[in-house]
Amino acid sequence: MNLVVTGTIGIDTVVTPQGQHAEGVLGGSCAYFAAASSFYTPTRLVAVVGDDQPTEHRDLLDSFKDIDTTGLEVRAGSQTFRWGGKYLENMDHRETLFTELGVLREEPPVVPEAYKDSTHVFLANTHPAIQMQMLEQFPNRTLAVADTMDLWIDTARDDLIELLGKVDGLVLNYDEAEQLSGKTNTVAASRALLEFGPRFVVVKKGEHGCIFVHRDGIAAFPAFPAEEVLDPTGAGDTFAGGMMGHIAANAGRTFSDEDSDFHTIRRALAHGTVMASFNIESFSLYRLGSLTREQLDRRYDMFTNMVCSH
Amino acid sequence: MNLVVTGTIGIDTVVTPQGQHAEGVLGGSCAYFAAASSFYTPTRLVAVVGDDQPTEHRDLLDSFKDIDTTGLEVRAGSQTFRWGGKYLENMDHRETLFTELGVLREEPPVVPEAYKDSTHVFLANTHPAIQMQMLEQFPNRTLAVADTMDLWIDTARDDLIELLGKVDGLVLNYDEAEQLSGKTNTVAASRALLEFGPRFVVVKKGEHGCIFVHRDGIAAFPAFPAEEVLDPTGAGDTFAGGMMGHIAANAGRTFSDEDSDFHTIRRALAHGTVMASFNIESFSLYRLGSLTREQLDRRYDMFTNMVCSH
Repeated sequence: MNLVVTGTIGIDTVVTPQGQHAEGVLGGSCAYFAAASSFYTPTRLVAVVGDDQPTEHRDLLDSFKDIDTTGLEVRAGSQTFRWGGKYLENMDHRETLFTELGVLREEPPVVPEAYKDSTHVFLANTHPAIQMQMLEQFPNRTLAVADTMDLWIDTARDDLIELLGKVDGLVLNYDEAEQLSGKTNTVAASRALLEFGPRFVVVKKGEHGCIFVHRDGIAAFPAFPAEEVLDPTGAGDTFAGGMMGHIAANAGRTFSDEDSDFHTIRRALAHGTVMASFNIESFSLYRLGSLTREQLDRRYDMFTNMVCSH
Repeated sequence: MNLVVTGTIGIDTVVTPQGQHAEGVLGGSCAYFAAASSFYTPTRLVAVVGDDQPTEHRDLLDSFKDIDTTGLEVRAGSQTFRWGGKYLENMDHRETLFTELGVLREEPPVVPEAYKDSTHVFLANTHPAIQMQMLEQFPNRTLAVADTMDLWIDTARDDLIELLGKVDGLVLNYDEAEQLSGKTNTVAASRALLEFGPRFVVVKKGEHGCIFVHRDGIAAFPAFPAEEVLDPTGAGDTFAGGMMGHIAANAGRTFSDEDSDFHTIRRALAHGTVMASFNIESFSLYRLGSLTREQLDRRYDMFTNMVCSH
């Protein structure tokens, strides 16, 4: 079992409704995902940054012992991807302050030869044509899951549909599921997306949890009821990281025969939910950076006791 | 154990986003609540209608064998409460087309002498001063729970706060919890409401389930992931009916020592969730009218298996 994530590493600026600020902190889908999944299993990372990436960012990433950064390319003369966002009062919506693609406009990173035997592949959000190009470099994959966003649904729909024919699962937001399927009911929207090829769809609803629609069944989870939310950035990626990390760590060990089995994914979603609930307590990877195994296990038990009513 | 519900019985007109219509059908918080709770335990109903209530409405209500309508007053010369609403596309929001208070402007109904020994009391949404007047007529109550709405938070806040000092639990919508507490985070809002007196608050989030904040713990439930939603009217009342019905039916039989115990309520919320998921499949009480015990039990098992991940 080898888990790999492909996506972005960036420099983020975040403004909260309470007026708190984080300027130029480590961000990007890959960073959030790998930090989360590394609690469960060693995680290989494929991404590219410019040589302007601050040393502290690399140090923070390296502080997660089970993140393998062999696949993190530092490209001389290029600019790291930068993003700024401001959350609106209910934390459920945000506005983008700026996006500087930088190195993301250039050639994608090279997948190291040593990563080619990866079995569990997560394609974090980026252009679906690049996701496809990445996917093809992992011929031994047993489970491939992709994330996407509204931008690609608008501008690269055909590439995205083609990708959906090649992955086992799709993770996306509430409104994106509606946008891509043309259906307003989440379950109906997800069922429509299954027609494009994947075995399952996970619809992320932020503070309202997630809906899981699989060819073999349906489930729903609430979010962990959090009292203090500082910064929701990366919630979706840490959710996916907890989920994929748990699946990869337990591959071949559960009673189910396949990694994309209904029960395997459903069980993993509770781990993703709990991981995301920690991430939103602070900016960047600061909360996951101080998270202990004991805290993680304790909240997982709280969460499962909460929703299991008998 | 005797369960009583006080509230309204009305004549509803509902327009769905798909353009379907239900004109002049049986509605009102009391009707929905009692239909749901009567699946668990005989339910006493206190409400008043005018002599214009259609015979079919009374017949539909009477078709639920365990609803006791001794407390349903038919007032000669008065007009039954009428409400019309139109649901917007995502089914989450509705606009009121008309409200004709009719008999609700007059004296409230009289509580029958035989109801005075009621132990479980649900005060469905109406003016908090009337809820208080009703509450005082049940001196043997062991559990009293109230619902409310934005109108009373705006116009009768002091009466509502006074009521909160006398009930064990409060059930209200997402935005109402925010409006009453002044806090945007649901858990923080609920905690603030506990300060007014109740032991617990249940925040209803429609298709996103509910958050349960009790002095002794917190929980969250997703809604049952429904693919077909025809009419969400009464979802909150049937949710409360399933919850209170389950508590009343099992009072003294569970391991907990009190009806307002954290675990008692939490277990009951799953029953409320499942009941509401049936109600929204059709207009008025039509779905609950054809619901069988077997269908109810089967979906309850599906729901608990769905959220219990281990």
